Formats: sequence, C-alpha cells, structure tokens
Amino acid sequence: MAKSVFYHAGCPVCVSAEHDIINLVGAENVEVVHLGDQKNRVGEAEALGLKSVPALVTPNGNVLHINFGASIEDLK
Amino acid sequence: MAKSVFYHAGCPVCVSAEHDIINLVGAENVEVVHLGDQKNRVGEAEALGLKSVPALVTPNGNVLHINFGASIEDLK
Repeated sequence: MAKSVFYHAGCPVCVSAEHDIINLVGAENVEVVHLGDQKNRVGEAEALGLKSVPALVTPNGNVLHINFGASIEDLK
Repeated sequence: MAKSVFYHAGCPVCVSAEHDIINLVGAENVEVVHLGDQKNRVGEAEALGLKSVPALVTPNGNVLHINFGASIEDLK
C-alpha cells in the first residue's frame, strides 16, 4: 500500500489525532510531517489541497481535514 | 483491535471520506452508521462528542471530525 501523509503543526489536537491515526492505519503506512518544523514543505502541502492541520492525505490524493487546529496560512 | 465507528449522513463528502477511511483502516475494523437513515443513533453519536459528520470515533473514544459536512443539529 502506498503511504499516506499526515501533516500537523505540533498543536495538542494534532498530536492527539496523530496518535489515533497511527494506531488505526499503522505507523509503517503513514509519513508524519511537522509543518512548523519543516516550513519548506508548506508549499507542497498547499499544492495537495491542505487548508488546515491536522490533515491526512490518502494514497489516492484525497485530503481529509481532521478537526480544525491551525490554518495553513498561519504556518507560512 | 476494537472497532472504530464512522458516522456519516450520506452527503458526497461523507461518502468520499468513508471510502478513504475504509481503504486505510480496513472494512472489518470500522462500523459505518448512516445517521440520516438511523436517526435513533443520533443521541448516541452526540453523547460520544460528535459535532458534525463525517466523523470517526476511534476504539479509545476519541472523535476525529473530518472536513465539515453537516452539523449534528441538522440530523435531529
């Protein structure tokens, strides 16, 4: 299975969602990207359609926005 | 693994998210509840903390609200 990518920014709701997603999907199936630490990947995330974090991009390219933590605009 | 429960209401964003979640987590690990058809379960969903659908309730009871489809208020 192709990997999903979980984008977050270290906020409490992100970390909680990260643990849930990893438990559900399996750590080996998810790449975790901290956009606060890796600001060079904000553009990539935006190009994929991210509007907020935390969000999970599935292997087929769908973006699942989870709750609402931080606007992508605030991470630039 | 205990089952997660995916609550939705048949809206397009719900159905799309449902397919993604089932692909990621595995159909055997998710119970799917259509709150539009099963209005008797709206109270249960609300008690679990659902504010909107689609949402996934993980085996440990966390509620992951995915995107924003329909307010739980609109399903009563």
